[in-house]
Amino acid sequence: MRWSARARWWERSAHESGFCTQLLRGLGQVAFQASARTGAAFAAALCVADWRLAAYAVGGAALGTWTARALGGPRDRREAGLEGFNSALLALCFAVFLGRDRPTTALLAAAGCIVVSIGTAAAVRLLSVWELPPLTLPYCLLAVAVTVAAPAYRRIWPFGNSLAALPGSASGRTTLHLDELALAFFHNVSQLFFLERWHVGALLLVGVFLASRTAGLIACAGSLTGIVTAWALSAPAERIVNGTMGYNAVLVALALCGVFLPAAPVTLFYALLGAATATVLTPAVAALLSPSGGHAFTWPFVLTTLGFLAAARSFPRLSATDRERAAGPAVGARGRDGSRPCLRSVPAGRRPVGHVSGARRMRSRSRAR
Amino acid sequence: MRWSARARWWERSAHESGFCTQLLRGLGQVAFQASARTGAAFAAALCVADWRLAAYAVGGAALGTWTARALGGPRDRREAGLEGFNSALLALCFAVFLGRDRPTTALLAAAGCIVVSIGTAAAVRLLSVWELPPLTLPYCLLAVAVTVAAPAYRRIWPFGNSLAALPGSASGRTTLHLDELALAFFHNVSQLFFLERWHVGALLLVGVFLASRTAGLIACAGSLTGIVTAWALSAPAERIVNGTMGYNAVLVALALCGVFLPAAPVTLFYALLGAATATVLTPAVAALLSPSGGHAFTWPFVLTTLGFLAAARSFPRLSATDRERAAGPAVGARGRDGSRPCLRSVPAGRRPVGHVSGARRMRSRSRAR
Amino acid sequence: MRWSARARWWERSAHESGFCTQLLRGLGQVAFQASARTGAAFAAALCVADWRLAAYAVGGAALGTWTARALGGPRDRREAGLEGFNSALLALCFAVFLGRDRPTTALLAAAGCIVVSIGTAAAVRLLSVWELPPLTLPYCLLAVAVTVAAPAYRRIWPFGNSLAALPGSASGRTTLHLDELALAFFHNVSQLFFLERWHVGALLLVGVFLASRTAGLIACAGSLTGIVTAWALSAPAERIVNGTMGYNAVLVALALCGVFLPAAPVTLFYALLGAATATVLTPAVAALLSPSGGHAFTWPFVLTTLGFLAAARSFPRLSATDRERAAGPAVGARGRDGSRPCLRSVPAGRRPVGHVSGARRMRSRSRAR
Repeated sequence: MRWSARARWWERSAHESGFCTQLLRGLGQVAFQASARTGAAFAAALCVADWRLAAYAVGGAALGTWTARALGGPRDRREAGLEGFNSALLALCFAVFLGRDRPTTALLAAAGCIVVSIGTAAAVRLLSVWELPPLTLPYCLLAVAVTVAAPAYRRIWPFGNSLAALPGSASGRTTLHLDELALAFFHNVSQLFFLERWHVGALLLVGVFLASRTAGLIACAGSLTGIVTAWALSAPAERIVNGTMGYNAVLVALALCGVFLPAAPVTLFYALLGAATATVLTPAVAALLSPSGGHAFTWPFVLTTLGFLAAARSFPRLSATDRERAAGPAVGARGRDGSRPCLRSVPAGRRPVGHVSGARRMRSRSRAR
Repeated sequence: MRWSARARWWERSAHESGFCTQLLRGLGQVAFQASARTGAAFAAALCVADWRLAAYAVGGAALGTWTARALGGPRDRREAGLEGFNSALLALCFAVFLGRDRPTTALLAAAGCIVVSIGTAAAVRLLSVWELPPLTLPYCLLAVAVTVAAPAYRRIWPFGNSLAALPGSASGRTTLHLDELALAFFHNVSQLFFLERWHVGALLLVGVFLASRTAGLIACAGSLTGIVTAWALSAPAERIVNGTMGYNAVLVALALCGVFLPAAPVTLFYALLGAATATVLTPAVAALLSPSGGHAFTWPFVLTTLGFLAAARSFPRLSATDRERAAGPAVGARGRDGSRPCLRSVPAGRRPVGHVSGARRMRSRSRAR
Repeated sequence: MRWSARARWWERSAHESGFCTQLLRGLGQVAFQASARTGAAFAAALCVADWRLAAYAVGGAALGTWTARALGGPRDRREAGLEGFNSALLALCFAVFLGRDRPTTALLAAAGCIVVSIGTAAAVRLLSVWELPPLTLPYCLLAVAVTVAAPAYRRIWPFGNSLAALPGSASGRTTLHLDELALAFFHNVSQLFFLERWHVGALLLVGVFLASRTAGLIACAGSLTGIVTAWALSAPAERIVNGTMGYNAVLVALALCGVFLPAAPVTLFYALLGAATATVLTPAVAALLSPSGGHAFTWPFVLTTLGFLAAARSFPRLSATDRERAAGPAVGARGRDGSRPCLRSVPAGRRPVGHVSGARRMRSRSRAR
């Protein structure tokens, strides 16, 4: 693709942002930020680790957004990058679990990105009955399906034995050193992209702060909650340090405080309770999928967030805050007009409900300019 | 807590019954009876077995009801005890499976009770689309999650190896002696509280009869159906006698005849068919969870009852009975005004739908006094 | 049953077709064809393999239809045979997996057919919220439950050890000979009825062509897609040839092109993408159920089709075709008046939504005569 063509994509029309913007927002939506800058920071962080991973993620986001456009999916979802994050994560997951150097993996990832776009449309529709967002549910479904099915196909899985095993009990040291705490803190973030590198985690966190200072602080609180919960229950130190116990906590905290519920003290407490719950759930999902050879991926985040969001409507304490705020200024990771896409009373099935409001947020943004 | 304070809770207002009443009703709701007397009988039965178990159950019901109030959940559900039974069962489950004497278990049970209250609100909302009650779904979800995750945490599970194992086939004697039949009959009831003691089962049955003679008889019919089904299919005698094959049958029979469907000959037949189905399903759920180290808990009851209730609307034979009865006098375990909370045409999401009608039943009760 | 009685059933009224017609349509609905001729061809194909299997299938369809009538289920669903295919498949599944010669199997199949009718009513109701059809979901649920629970009952499973095992990785030859291709092609169809006989597959295919030439061609395309997908990913040749990799592809292709979406080039592409997805998913479902001793049955078909149907509404490309066609002549396997039961805007819960439109299709048929 030449630069001129790319520039044209970028500037395609006054109303619809360019394909590259949509693509980068898709990457940013992995941490709920519909910001091209955040997406660019995420891509850079992946490049630091391995340029092939960055290629998979960017290619996945591009293919997912393109598929949604080709099939004629709703424009506002594409604009907000909501059609890109599931496919970006799926492509990355295939690269990490099935070997990033094999052409089969690349082809399979491409096919997976198309199917996950269809899966996203299905999840949006099924969950719209409860006005709930699809989150990373489509990615989780396909990632589990393909990693579990892989050993049955010699071309997908040329590595010999299946990973299926009965879950064992915890072993190893459970005390945590102070320097490990910092590692765990950043690994919880870098595990969003399947990586165990503290500087990638730090860069990702910088990307989140670029979009919103509140969101960045909440992500930090989520990561700490994950560490404290796992440590208090004596999880093996190794698992806390490599970030596999806490990445769901980061996502839950972000989702429940500032994205789908307003950022306020009471929702922060609710979000951190959710983060702790997701941390406890993580080995449960791992144990349920382990005998089939599957991984937890972001299932604990999806299940916890959907549950806590569905419950939030029944609790006036949380929705009262909500109503007050709706009249006041926008907070944190929400749109600048204070719009909250998910919990407004929208007739089910009428308009897509996603990670973060699509059209309204974009419109408010163009107004702000 | 001093007696005066407790008395104040009890008599808090003319309209809202006291906290202790709500708490005891919560215990009674384990067998669908919104009756404080039944709850007191259940607590007494648990005391006979082990006072610590009674403490866990009462504390769980209290914490669940308190959380729902603190978060501002609907009052009619609290009044009917519908916010107490899931947390009571969860606390009891932790006491039985994770060691009742350890402070960790008590703290974990307290945290679990708060989360299960949120889970209950979520389940009420999600199932309200079909006007279905949440039953013990929130408890089942969390109980499976925590027991399956436990071996990953040294502090929750200090007992060494995980319980995960591939399910085996039946072994042992399959003939049933007459004296074992009586044991099985009462153990089916006592297993509602994870106990294998015939006198606890007898006391629990007395508690059900205290609330409603019809409900007591239906519970007996459910227990017998469970035994007959398991025996006819040659389940191992040991499993029939210890009550682990039949406790779901008791719950299904109660739920489908007199609670969510009116008590009538045709619904009794339907309920006993459901009880038999739940009995057959019990080892299926156990086998599905066994490789991960999970237990069946009341999943067979939840799945069977939700399925049979969803289907009941399509069958005029069952709903005709229903319409006739609605005009006539109340029957069995239903409210005295014959209200049926679950199957009336209520706009989805407007009002909570639970085990047994909340507000209406309570109001009719205070009128009756 | 004497012939005179049977004749009376057949000719029962001008408006309601006879019981035998309903029964045969129930068999035809296994491949989505509400045609008694197709059902008769299917029964004949089963007879060629083993008369006992035909007896189980016909008996199952009869009992399912009868139960729905006895309970007062909606007539239009019975007329279209929509109450017969789940019970026919369940009875056949029990015959194949639990021993066709034992009286216990026959009795269990009879009980299962009654319960699966209730399950069908529940699935229709639950899925009507999204206007999705129940497909073979009730059969899949019960078939997995009973086969997984079987080893716990000596009378159901007298064969000793449970089948539960951790899933292994692929082994054996992956190249496919040309003559094996033809075998695989027909086995994919015969596996709809759990058989690995090419001439049964050919007869079943003739049955589909009897109802609709378009449907027959789509079934062929689905079978080929299954083979190509499995071969391209290097599945073991043995599994491709015996048809266990591709039977879901046949069903998905039929469902998504001509039954629930109109038959058109764009939906054909969509359907074949779905068929490939279902093929990849097949070993995933098998691996998830394998540690509990379960089989995949038609779960991959059910999950893929429900997902792709739910997504189809969000894609104007697919629904545009749909709208154009609705005005034009009927296509393929759809009703002669071009009615599309599943995707029309029907208020949820008002009327049953099934495999193929019930009442409207029948009415249009009688008009055509």
